[in-house]
Amino acid sequence: LFILCTLGFFTAAADAAKAPGMPQVLAASPAADWRAVDAENTLYLELPAGRVVIELAPGFAPLHVANIKKMARTRYYDGIGVVRVQDNYVVQWADPDNRHPLPPGIDRTPPEFDLPEPKSASGMPADAAFTRLPDGDVYAPEVGFSAGFPVARSKTLHRAWLAHCYGMVGVGRDIAVDSGSGAELYMVLGHAPRHLDRNVALVGRVLQGAQLLSELPRGGGELGFYTSGQAAVKINAVRVAADLPAGERTDLEVLRTDSKTFHDVVEARRNRPEDFFQVQAGRIDLCNVPIPVRNAARH
Amino acid sequence: LFILCTLGFFTAAADAAKAPGMPQVLAASPAADWRAVDAENTLYLELPAGRVVIELAPGFAPLHVANIKKMARTRYYDGIGVVRVQDNYVVQWADPDNRHPLPPGIDRTPPEFDLPEPKSASGMPADAAFTRLPDGDVYAPEVGFSAGFPVARSKTLHRAWLAHCYGMVGVGRDIAVDSGSGAELYMVLGHAPRHLDRNVALVGRVLQGAQLLSELPRGGGELGFYTSGQAAVKINAVRVAADLPAGERTDLEVLRTDSKTFHDVVEARRNRPEDFFQVQAGRIDLCNVPIPVRNAARH
Repeated sequence: LFILCTLGFFTAAADAAKAPGMPQVLAASPAADWRAVDAENTLYLELPAGRVVIELAPGFAPLHVANIKKMARTRYYDGIGVVRVQDNYVVQWADPDNRHPLPPGIDRTPPEFDLPEPKSASGMPADAAFTRLPDGDVYAPEVGFSAGFPVARSKTLHRAWLAHCYGMVGVGRDIAVDSGSGAELYMVLGHAPRHLDRNVALVGRVLQGAQLLSELPRGGGELGFYTSGQAAVKINAVRVAADLPAGERTDLEVLRTDSKTFHDVVEARRNRPEDFFQVQAGRIDLCNVPIPVRNAARH
Repeated sequence: LFILCTLGFFTAAADAAKAPGMPQVLAASPAADWRAVDAENTLYLELPAGRVVIELAPGFAPLHVANIKKMARTRYYDGIGVVRVQDNYVVQWADPDNRHPLPPGIDRTPPEFDLPEPKSASGMPADAAFTRLPDGDVYAPEVGFSAGFPVARSKTLHRAWLAHCYGMVGVGRDIAVDSGSGAELYMVLGHAPRHLDRNVALVGRVLQGAQLLSELPRGGGELGFYTSGQAAVKINAVRVAADLPAGERTDLEVLRTDSKTFHDVVEARRNRPEDFFQVQAGRIDLCNVPIPVRNAARH
């Protein structure tokens, strides 16, 4: 198989006909390969159409995440709206009129665009083992996953950073690199705009409900901003999950990206065993790897 | 610059602060670097919300394109609907009830998933010079553009094929590789699902109106299929542009992908000179390269 892949970049589907697909891999997964999402680092966007669940990444952008939680807890975001939907790029929400005063203690935040590459396991959050993908990347020397997030890194730069994959959430800013506070956030909804990597603070990933944002009408203005004639989509509330009673939470589990099951998911997607596939890619791009999420109540 | 890129994968924005951005590159482009889109190979999807313009690729999938034009001309598609919108994947349109009989002469079509790699310029359509991208690719040995379409190729396999980038249009099929006729089509609306390359016949690219498909409500069923409770989005008509009076056409021009201007566009996107960018990628992924389209009437 290795030789075939190296020579031809593709191998016949028949080679792996008996290999399990992703559904079989997940069905066979032990409970220990899943982790509950920390309610203290889970954000709910309550839209008229439903709830978007975001897992925050304090290990990568601690100052911005602290800002965002403070703004959620002081109700800063309640009643703001979606101000921009640019096709194949981002959906962005903010105070459309810049009338909401920022709560005390929130201001411009130093850029948290990347982190020092850890010299040892203790250099990053405890669960941030780096699971490297084998197939390379156009933008970075190495890519993989840490703590459930897509990550790129460079041993030359001695830096690691979150990658702009579909569903990742970032902090809007102006030209100045310290001009983002967290008051304005965006979600990637198109082909991964990896040129934004190391230019913006990514703060988390949508675990559920991404489609409630990606199916919104595209904005008619420059860069997809909504024009005055377009109805702004209101965000009813933004809450930290830990602040809600247990019965009102969406309890999700995420597959541990340093688990054997996740490794098997990656393999099942590098070489799709389903009958549909005439040829298998034998490779996978960082942002095509699914990070499985499931409802905790069902297991 | 080359050394910086090789060492670090990124270079400081200041290095190229005087380089023109894409808007400046396009504003300075000579008329000869643009081509009118052939009305005989342009398809209009007339949706209730507006027109989607698709440039067909007969050089890559001649049998499927012939089928699709015949079906358009016999009004097969009129009144069919969008049957599937899977988030971060595809939107698909087809006869939801399988009640439209296929017109005479349309049947299963042999797979046109890739082409023999041309040994000489005459081996591919006349305007299909291959403009190679310099930064590599996760899925294929070489990527670039031919005749305005994103293309991958392998000298080992001696094959070239269209790549599944955002906005590309393909032919739905069942398990059998010859089961696609063109009666069912899809557009990519998420991160490029490149594992579909060489598994499906791609037949064209959306030049205008992609957002009319990508902003549609996601389907609630398995794989994003619409369920019976969801209102299907109707396609009023599908027309070959050449069959409409001149006044009813959308006259577009596409930047020639073998032109100097296109080369400059690629460079302006590999190293974004805009002040916003703190670091420049120094690289670009095939599906992040814009293929500029403009309204012919304005020039």
